[in-house]
Amino acid sequence: MSEQTAFPHGTQTTTRVEHDCIGTLEVPSDVYWGIHTQRAISNFPVSGITDGQHPELIRAYATVKRACAIANEELGLIDHDKAEAIRQACHEIELGKLADQFPVDVMQGGAGTSANMNMNEVIANRALEIAGHQRGDYAYIHPNDDVNESQSTNDTYPAACKLALIDAIGPLAEATKKLAKAFHDLADKHINDVTIGRTQLQDAVPMTYGQEFHAFATLLKSDLAAFDRVVPLLAQLNLGATAIGTGICADLRFRQSATTHLANITGLPITAAPDPVAAMTDMGAYVATSAPVKSLAVHLKKAADDLRLLNSGPRCGFNDLNVPARQAGSSIMPAKVNPVIPECVNQCCFSIFGMDVTVNWAVAEGQLQLNAFDPLMVHELLTGMKLLTNAMTIFRTNCVEGIEIHTEIGRDYAQSSPSIAAALNHYIGYEKAADIAAEAVRTGRTVREVAGERTDLPAEQLDEILDPIRLSRGLGQTCREHQQ
Amino acid sequence: MSEQTAFPHGTQTTTRVEHDCIGTLEVPSDVYWGIHTQRAISNFPVSGITDGQHPELIRAYATVKRACAIANEELGLIDHDKAEAIRQACHEIELGKLADQFPVDVMQGGAGTSANMNMNEVIANRALEIAGHQRGDYAYIHPNDDVNESQSTNDTYPAACKLALIDAIGPLAEATKKLAKAFHDLADKHINDVTIGRTQLQDAVPMTYGQEFHAFATLLKSDLAAFDRVVPLLAQLNLGATAIGTGICADLRFRQSATTHLANITGLPITAAPDPVAAMTDMGAYVATSAPVKSLAVHLKKAADDLRLLNSGPRCGFNDLNVPARQAGSSIMPAKVNPVIPECVNQCCFSIFGMDVTVNWAVAEGQLQLNAFDPLMVHELLTGMKLLTNAMTIFRTNCVEGIEIHTEIGRDYAQSSPSIAAALNHYIGYEKAADIAAEAVRTGRTVREVAGERTDLPAEQLDEILDPIRLSRGLGQTCREHQQ
Amino acid sequence: MSEQTAFPHGTQTTTRVEHDCIGTLEVPSDVYWGIHTQRAISNFPVSGITDGQHPELIRAYATVKRACAIANEELGLIDHDKAEAIRQACHEIELGKLADQFPVDVMQGGAGTSANMNMNEVIANRALEIAGHQRGDYAYIHPNDDVNESQSTNDTYPAACKLALIDAIGPLAEATKKLAKAFHDLADKHINDVTIGRTQLQDAVPMTYGQEFHAFATLLKSDLAAFDRVVPLLAQLNLGATAIGTGICADLRFRQSATTHLANITGLPITAAPDPVAAMTDMGAYVATSAPVKSLAVHLKKAADDLRLLNSGPRCGFNDLNVPARQAGSSIMPAKVNPVIPECVNQCCFSIFGMDVTVNWAVAEGQLQLNAFDPLMVHELLTGMKLLTNAMTIFRTNCVEGIEIHTEIGRDYAQSSPSIAAALNHYIGYEKAADIAAEAVRTGRTVREVAGERTDLPAEQLDEILDPIRLSRGLGQTCREHQQ
Amino acid sequence: MSEQTAFPHGTQTTTRVEHDCIGTLEVPSDVYWGIHTQRAISNFPVSGITDGQHPELIRAYATVKRACAIANEELGLIDHDKAEAIRQACHEIELGKLADQFPVDVMQGGAGTSANMNMNEVIANRALEIAGHQRGDYAYIHPNDDVNESQSTNDTYPAACKLALIDAIGPLAEATKKLAKAFHDLADKHINDVTIGRTQLQDAVPMTYGQEFHAFATLLKSDLAAFDRVVPLLAQLNLGATAIGTGICADLRFRQSATTHLANITGLPITAAPDPVAAMTDMGAYVATSAPVKSLAVHLKKAADDLRLLNSGPRCGFNDLNVPARQAGSSIMPAKVNPVIPECVNQCCFSIFGMDVTVNWAVAEGQLQLNAFDPLMVHELLTGMKLLTNAMTIFRTNCVEGIEIHTEIGRDYAQSSPSIAAALNHYIGYEKAADIAAEAVRTGRTVREVAGERTDLPAEQLDEILDPIRLSRGLGQTCREHQQ
Repeated sequence: MSEQTAFPHGTQTTTRVEHDCIGTLEVPSDVYWGIHTQRAISNFPVSGITDGQHPELIRAYATVKRACAIANEELGLIDHDKAEAIRQACHEIELGKLADQFPVDVMQGGAGTSANMNMNEVIANRALEIAGHQRGDYAYIHPNDDVNESQSTNDTYPAACKLALIDAIGPLAEATKKLAKAFHDLADKHINDVTIGRTQLQDAVPMTYGQEFHAFATLLKSDLAAFDRVVPLLAQLNLGATAIGTGICADLRFRQSATTHLANITGLPITAAPDPVAAMTDMGAYVATSAPVKSLAVHLKKAADDLRLLNSGPRCGFNDLNVPARQAGSSIMPAKVNPVIPECVNQCCFSIFGMDVTVNWAVAEGQLQLNAFDPLMVHELLTGMKLLTNAMTIFRTNCVEGIEIHTEIGRDYAQSSPSIAAALNHYIGYEKAADIAAEAVRTGRTVREVAGERTDLPAEQLDEILDPIRLSRGLGQTCREHQQ
Repeated sequence: MSEQTAFPHGTQTTTRVEHDCIGTLEVPSDVYWGIHTQRAISNFPVSGITDGQHPELIRAYATVKRACAIANEELGLIDHDKAEAIRQACHEIELGKLADQFPVDVMQGGAGTSANMNMNEVIANRALEIAGHQRGDYAYIHPNDDVNESQSTNDTYPAACKLALIDAIGPLAEATKKLAKAFHDLADKHINDVTIGRTQLQDAVPMTYGQEFHAFATLLKSDLAAFDRVVPLLAQLNLGATAIGTGICADLRFRQSATTHLANITGLPITAAPDPVAAMTDMGAYVATSAPVKSLAVHLKKAADDLRLLNSGPRCGFNDLNVPARQAGSSIMPAKVNPVIPECVNQCCFSIFGMDVTVNWAVAEGQLQLNAFDPLMVHELLTGMKLLTNAMTIFRTNCVEGIEIHTEIGRDYAQSSPSIAAALNHYIGYEKAADIAAEAVRTGRTVREVAGERTDLPAEQLDEILDPIRLSRGLGQTCREHQQ
Repeated sequence: MSEQTAFPHGTQTTTRVEHDCIGTLEVPSDVYWGIHTQRAISNFPVSGITDGQHPELIRAYATVKRACAIANEELGLIDHDKAEAIRQACHEIELGKLADQFPVDVMQGGAGTSANMNMNEVIANRALEIAGHQRGDYAYIHPNDDVNESQSTNDTYPAACKLALIDAIGPLAEATKKLAKAFHDLADKHINDVTIGRTQLQDAVPMTYGQEFHAFATLLKSDLAAFDRVVPLLAQLNLGATAIGTGICADLRFRQSATTHLANITGLPITAAPDPVAAMTDMGAYVATSAPVKSLAVHLKKAADDLRLLNSGPRCGFNDLNVPARQAGSSIMPAKVNPVIPECVNQCCFSIFGMDVTVNWAVAEGQLQLNAFDPLMVHELLTGMKLLTNAMTIFRTNCVEGIEIHTEIGRDYAQSSPSIAAALNHYIGYEKAADIAAEAVRTGRTVREVAGERTDLPAEQLDEILDPIRLSRGLGQTCREHQQ
Repeated sequence: MSEQTAFPHGTQTTTRVEHDCIGTLEVPSDVYWGIHTQRAISNFPVSGITDGQHPELIRAYATVKRACAIANEELGLIDHDKAEAIRQACHEIELGKLADQFPVDVMQGGAGTSANMNMNEVIANRALEIAGHQRGDYAYIHPNDDVNESQSTNDTYPAACKLALIDAIGPLAEATKKLAKAFHDLADKHINDVTIGRTQLQDAVPMTYGQEFHAFATLLKSDLAAFDRVVPLLAQLNLGATAIGTGICADLRFRQSATTHLANITGLPITAAPDPVAAMTDMGAYVATSAPVKSLAVHLKKAADDLRLLNSGPRCGFNDLNVPARQAGSSIMPAKVNPVIPECVNQCCFSIFGMDVTVNWAVAEGQLQLNAFDPLMVHELLTGMKLLTNAMTIFRTNCVEGIEIHTEIGRDYAQSSPSIAAALNHYIGYEKAADIAAEAVRTGRTVREVAGERTDLPAEQLDEILDPIRLSRGLGQTCREHQQ
């Protein structure tokens, strides 16, 4: 595997030689990365997924580097021309250029050092080109001494990861909003269509389909609020903390300067962590991010599960509704159509539940002054967030927007449920209401029918008391209230 | 908390003083434990659950100690009189005596050292009594030098834990068998009662309730087979390995002798681990034990979930059956009865799924020559196994044995499913069969009714082709086979 | 098992007969519970743990019932005398009386109906006594019609669970604060004692023990902030929503009234959920509560893990410090003392990680208008929170407060780390600094020693540049800043 | 996303029109798949990973289809020419051809129906070509009626998944064996090099590096045995069970015939599940497969963790050994080299722990006659198994094979541990041994040195008693044995 990925751009004939503290290595001459990246390519061929496949991470890291370059120039640590070339290189990467220059496996060891050095090398070589130098001419712009000035992997990589996660919240939240709206629209369309509410899968009391689907929208909106609460945690960064949080090798003013410039560039409420040593070792923000993603998955699972239940049938199930027929359901059963989209959504949710456990492991295995496992955390979270983003998109377009509700069946359900007798409690007493409910169950008639025979209440009043739409709005009790 | 548990037998007025490498401590004079236990009581008041609340563990540890005492005497390491007193004390504990003498928290730190010393102390003091000495007279029988001779916590505690787990498999398997039989009996009663099979919650093709419930029994039986496969792993012990597996401080012959005596006493296929150093640090047997317990929980969840689905209704659900009414389901909905027993079973299963993760953590956090977290593993597994044992008992007695199947509803389902048209494929072609199925769905009629009008097949043949009971036995195709 | 728990107060000779929709049953005459509780006792003997073993839950439920009774009287739904008796009974339970009257298994099925009916029955019977009536004289005060008026299990049980969780946050937060203070005190004591920071377990650059332990305090304080964020979610209740959120059988004014009275009684920022149908089915607050508990466990694990590492030795490990000797560590290795308290803490954390998964399962398995698994959620969370509360208490008192730091060893470490050469980068260049570091590693000398020979820097300046205490404060770079 | 993946081969200008029960759709004329695949492409764009990215699954499914084609011909259900063309098409796919024709997302809904139809369509169209017909000429060879004859998704897809897993066990086991050998070789090289065993991270008693690394090999071998136990579970298939296990639409003889032919083709011990209805709904084999994969991850994590500990240093850690320097460890700390390969392995293990949870979810969420979530299960397991295969390869080649053990440091450790005093217990008594150990700790001398002064034992005997290499082999006790 390593041979293949080592030279992904075809058979190289020319190379340049670079060196590091371990020795020298040939690097293809047409790539922007250098020796550190080249070593990492062959060190970690495990998942087959590269850093470059998380464009949010690449963009965010380039943004962090740009902010640092501005701070370095401001503090006189890099001269203007170099800083300008570095900034321009960063900006190109932020715009999506050089996207194929980040070939290291996402599950790399080393706490992100390879990702950092890959970024430093690509920026340096591109900056060299911009400045009219050859790639590899590190005497002019050096990946470590210039691009990485005042920085370490331990402070910039988590910064990039957290910004990438904030970035990924964007489309996730957008997809959440759109799905919530789809449920809301469906609810609005059926605001007066009654059906039966079911608790513990047993027939309970009337509600409307509007209430049922509005609830899904409500739950999704609660997840949006939860995402909002996570952003300040993710925006608390540790720039200038360098190796272990003490800020060794960094100008004391760098922390404030880099943080401020990054806040200005991104427009995010970025702050510096109050205890840099604690912040260096703590990955609590990843646990805190995983929680609302998991919560969203719980809500999506609920919607998918309920739709599959309500779609059960067509004869031997609930048959409250039909999800759109997206494909033939069976090779041998002719008319069968299955709820394949909710099933797909379910699987995405199960995947998230595993993600949460993996993140927990990675977060809880730090030792002393560093947790080396943030590459896994950010990979899992970005993958999971993208998966749910996609899942919500197909859920909406391939399913929710095309749901057809069987309003007549719902109406029958609302009237046929024996539990509707609860509405009679206050007029004829619980005991007699129970008798009526039991007789309805036994004889297969409705509570309304039995109550017509077994009580002295006038037909009009019975109709009103047992009217499902009024019951769905909790109005049964209002009558009582007025009577008292 | 520590004060309370320190003297659980009321206000002690007399104590005896014991000493260890840390210093001296007063121990209530009427207890059999000693200073090591006394310290542990106040060290670990976290879960409030004591070792003594896992009687399988206490019994198993006493058995291990008895086998070791026999080996020690055999090898001339302890004289006969002492060995005899020790063996008798062990035997009493195995019979359930002194059950209140194991007060250390189950989640103790120290890799089980406190459990071992607690056992050593209780055995020593009881053996002293048997031998006519005073409790605490360790000059005659010493907890370490005599009871613990040739042993360490690191070899005997895992041995006791594993034997305890084998012990716990007994009632678990018994409850599994009984529940399987209950499902089997229910299946036998309905061997010819057809209903609809549902795939992806959509009406599929006919089956019998007999087939449906027999499948539950089959799954449970597969778990029994899985338990059997675990026993040899649990029976591989490491006696004589002492501190780190090298056997320091133990006679070289002790390993074989103690293993043999333990096998003889227990009747179990106990073997000595081939690599004592590896066995010392590996907790793989706990992962291997957790797996079939989790698998059993998966199967129980499936049965509970399916029963709750089939019990849904009575009007607006599947209504295939009624689980027994065990208690009123609602304080406001008169006739409502909920499937409370399957719900309870579900919760027990969720608890097991968490247990599996906790065991995974504990097993995967060993370091170098020891994993110190076996107290948690054995506590979680014993608790989980007991929970499922109880869950299966109530599942059987409070639910499965009283299930009433609505055979007429099942019959209607079997006939009304549009998918039954699949049986016509071979007579009139898939396309025409699909048309018939579609018309049946559209008009609310059965496939049999539509097929009577839309095909030339004689009524008797149609009845036979679409006979649900024949279809439930895969006989539809036999016809075809004979025709060819 | 059921026989045993059915009559836990000894051999009853007298009973009273109660009835429900299923039939009649004898209830011991000296208990306050009634037929619903009695049935539940025999329905769910699975975990052996009773609702009564979660006093927070019992207290909270009584508080909820009291607030509802006030609302009911205010709205004219119950007359003053009955309401007064009910309130008084509730208050007694809130004060801890009748604590043995809640014998139903915590893992009960039925979505908490048994817990609710148990509470209704105990309150009713105690209120009857207070009002001068006989227990069981439900014609005067009825568990359902009076105590449960305007309520359902589905709205009051989650309310009680959430209040119980808020209640449990109290001691958890208190223990967190105290442990944070213990780490803070330890840090303060060693604010100037340098040691080596280690990243990826490799010697990195100097820091102080003060910084190291202050970080632990910082992490714990971040958990306190996270608990605070959870409270508003837990304080959002659904009183008056009754069966499915539509408020059937409840006076429309009840929701506001009961919510307001409960807020007044508890002093908590209790609000009514904006979408009662959504709130009825959603258990998101439990996921949201589990997250910071898990995060706390991550931080405790980190502290325990690090302490075990730093305590490794005494000769062949890090030996930075000694945790207090709490008990003899080995039965065969004389002077061995193990870090048993951190190990115990570790196990508690692993248990929490499993809890989080179990909660996830329970939360994600709701169906349609209800999630029936909140009994498991609240049981797991209360158990976990109490476990961590206890774990932090022993961590503090049995470990952290007695830690002895080997400051001389730390000082040696700080000076001997080759990575300290980083401080020379700016004076002699990275390349030459690397040579010095390499030579130091090779020869076993310190960077200071080698630098003294290999550079022209004056001894005083070298001493200052390489002064660990200055480096621990990021001051190395300040020099450079001033020089420029 | 759907547009992009819909026509992955560039801008198509020509298409063919196909139809299914939902309607018609254009399919690119140069692809082998048909309408079912085309719909699925746009239905499920969630993970971005296609079935084709699991070549084991594609190969296995083609093999299953080939066996079925043989059985169908044998039973006279398909004529020879068609069967021959189908078999040839299957064989080509088994050889890796048409690998780009399986574009459906691996996390597809529909229980694998899309994977099955994709396979049916590709086989049919390739068989049509082979038979001299046009692609799409389904009148001659039909994806459903011919390729899928006697089959359903519900029986063939799990069969393909399970064979794919067996296939994936091959390289996983091979990599396991090679890694075990690497540890074994390392162990052999250091069979006589003593070091200190550490329990609970505290210095314990002597062992050799040979013993330490041999244990890793032993654990890996236990995983190989566990894989072997899984194969029979995976080889139990359900061919001929069709829709729900009753075998509707399948010749009764097909089950035996297809099973036998598949066993012959694969050489695997393939059997037919005894209860087809139970087998249809049960995914227990996936839980059973996940367990040893997780166990392997536990063992890999242990090895990676231990190596990182033993590699800690170079001055302020254990420093027992050096893992190979694979890349520069830090951008600011010159000589720092980190254990990046073990760290990468750790992350792979954490990923597996999450996989196990995801599999648990998918397996436990089946309903009634089917579990629709096997696509996720097989995707997770194949991904996880491949990840560990790769992880073990880099662990071996990039780390274990290059480990350098610091044998002199180990020797010092073995002699300096105070716990070595345990070996004196039998000569001078536990109490005096403890005194010596304590003095050694206090004074920083070795037990041997102190014992030389504080006992009367001759120097030669002391040397022998305290000889680490003898102690590492448990020979200390042999002396005692001979003396007695």
